[in-house]
Amino acid sequence: MKNSNHSIGVFDSGIGGLTVVKRIESFLPNEKMIYFGDTARVPYGTKSNATVVEYSIQDANFLISKDVKIIVVACNTASSVALSAIEDRFNLPVIGMIEPGSELALNETRNGKIGVIGTNATINNKAYSKQLKKQDKQIKVFEKACPLFVPLAEEGWTDHEVSFLVAEEYLNEFKEIGIDTLVLGCTHYPLLADVIHKVLGNNVSLIDSGTAASIQVKKYLEKNDLSNIMKNKKVQHEFYVSDLPDKFRVIAERFMGRPIKKINKVDLEEIINL
Amino acid sequence: MKNSNHSIGVFDSGIGGLTVVKRIESFLPNEKMIYFGDTARVPYGTKSNATVVEYSIQDANFLISKDVKIIVVACNTASSVALSAIEDRFNLPVIGMIEPGSELALNETRNGKIGVIGTNATINNKAYSKQLKKQDKQIKVFEKACPLFVPLAEEGWTDHEVSFLVAEEYLNEFKEIGIDTLVLGCTHYPLLADVIHKVLGNNVSLIDSGTAASIQVKKYLEKNDLSNIMKNKKVQHEFYVSDLPDKFRVIAERFMGRPIKKINKVDLEEIINL
Repeated sequence: MKNSNHSIGVFDSGIGGLTVVKRIESFLPNEKMIYFGDTARVPYGTKSNATVVEYSIQDANFLISKDVKIIVVACNTASSVALSAIEDRFNLPVIGMIEPGSELALNETRNGKIGVIGTNATINNKAYSKQLKKQDKQIKVFEKACPLFVPLAEEGWTDHEVSFLVAEEYLNEFKEIGIDTLVLGCTHYPLLADVIHKVLGNNVSLIDSGTAASIQVKKYLEKNDLSNIMKNKKVQHEFYVSDLPDKFRVIAERFMGRPIKKINKVDLEEIINL
Repeated sequence: MKNSNHSIGVFDSGIGGLTVVKRIESFLPNEKMIYFGDTARVPYGTKSNATVVEYSIQDANFLISKDVKIIVVACNTASSVALSAIEDRFNLPVIGMIEPGSELALNETRNGKIGVIGTNATINNKAYSKQLKKQDKQIKVFEKACPLFVPLAEEGWTDHEVSFLVAEEYLNEFKEIGIDTLVLGCTHYPLLADVIHKVLGNNVSLIDSGTAASIQVKKYLEKNDLSNIMKNKKVQHEFYVSDLPDKFRVIAERFMGRPIKKINKVDLEEIINL
């Protein structure tokens, strides 16, 4: 008996993964999702690899306790560090951000010059450049950490003059290099796509790893007869977080682009002791 | 026998506390400091109060294991949540940020209108407004979270046009209200003092809680015969962090305004099991 009517599990260190939920939703409107944001331990990017692996396994385990049929690691740091550990531990398909995003970027580029932006952690790890070069040794990759983009997205300053100036400061070097494809290597960044396009021009393709991952999820479910074929007119996703600070709902709804009915707080102890 | 030749212990959730080290240094050039930045678990502001208390006690305990004579909690979140817990646990003077900053602001204001800026956590806690109103019921306090200031300071964009525009966006309401005193309720913010002055004008006094705390440390040491009277021509502070990401040294030296000879990494397990 296939678990086709089970949910898709999505986790992130915090709130950014909601942009991935939104993407999956647009590709798979019939699928219910269970989201876990580890807001009590956010960010993962400043933590050691061993710690990120430990936390990611706990996060995945929480989703598994909710009987999900597939896990999406909607966090670039966790994807780059913990993906194989999660696959080894659990007997469940796991889809991260790095490999789908890289594949889509390689399909997209014409001139072989790909830019990658992300948090300090993702850029220092060289997660994308390693993956891109693994798939195509000839490719030229240019990486840049953009630490101000996360707080700008969380503030909701998505078309503010400040965001444009920050994007110019960070991205001008890509214009000089002449990249034709830019990987948004952080789940917060799709919110700033308009500003980034304004700086780089519309000839540069922006690769949203969440979109790339959604396509892979869709393919996997179809190939393995796991797609939900029951017509759910109104799918209600479930949202869980390990801490619920005052502003969380405001930011979460900004990221989802619509109201969220209920956000459930789970005690960290419950997650750890599962 | 007094411990006058022992060090001053300073801890913070991360790197911001270094601005406080710099202030203490200017008031007490003869004193050696031992700094601990809990960079593996930064930020504290998004964590529950219970967790912040637990971590802060561990941080203080680490400093005590280094035989410090006084502890400075150079973190506004830890100061607002964990100060009394640290005092209760250890038999050592403890100085935080909130009370000295508030006292200095009350001394400074002429019109009784005080602004307070800080991270979301500090502003949501109302740490400063509670303290200010406890000391003076008539005082009018206006609070504003400025979440972009921390990443701007860490990027080193202290005189960048972007920082000026962000400061205008956050602080314009204070101009309309007519505050004459602004508390910098986050240890990162003194780095943006010039930009803040540019927006608010030089008639608004900026209160650096690190300065206020330094004055209290000096007073306490003098009153209790704990000042180091040995003439140390070149005091070498000791810096410890629980994680050492690539960019840490760059940011740390930016905050201290000079090179740091050695930054020691301590394992979190060592801190927890002390």
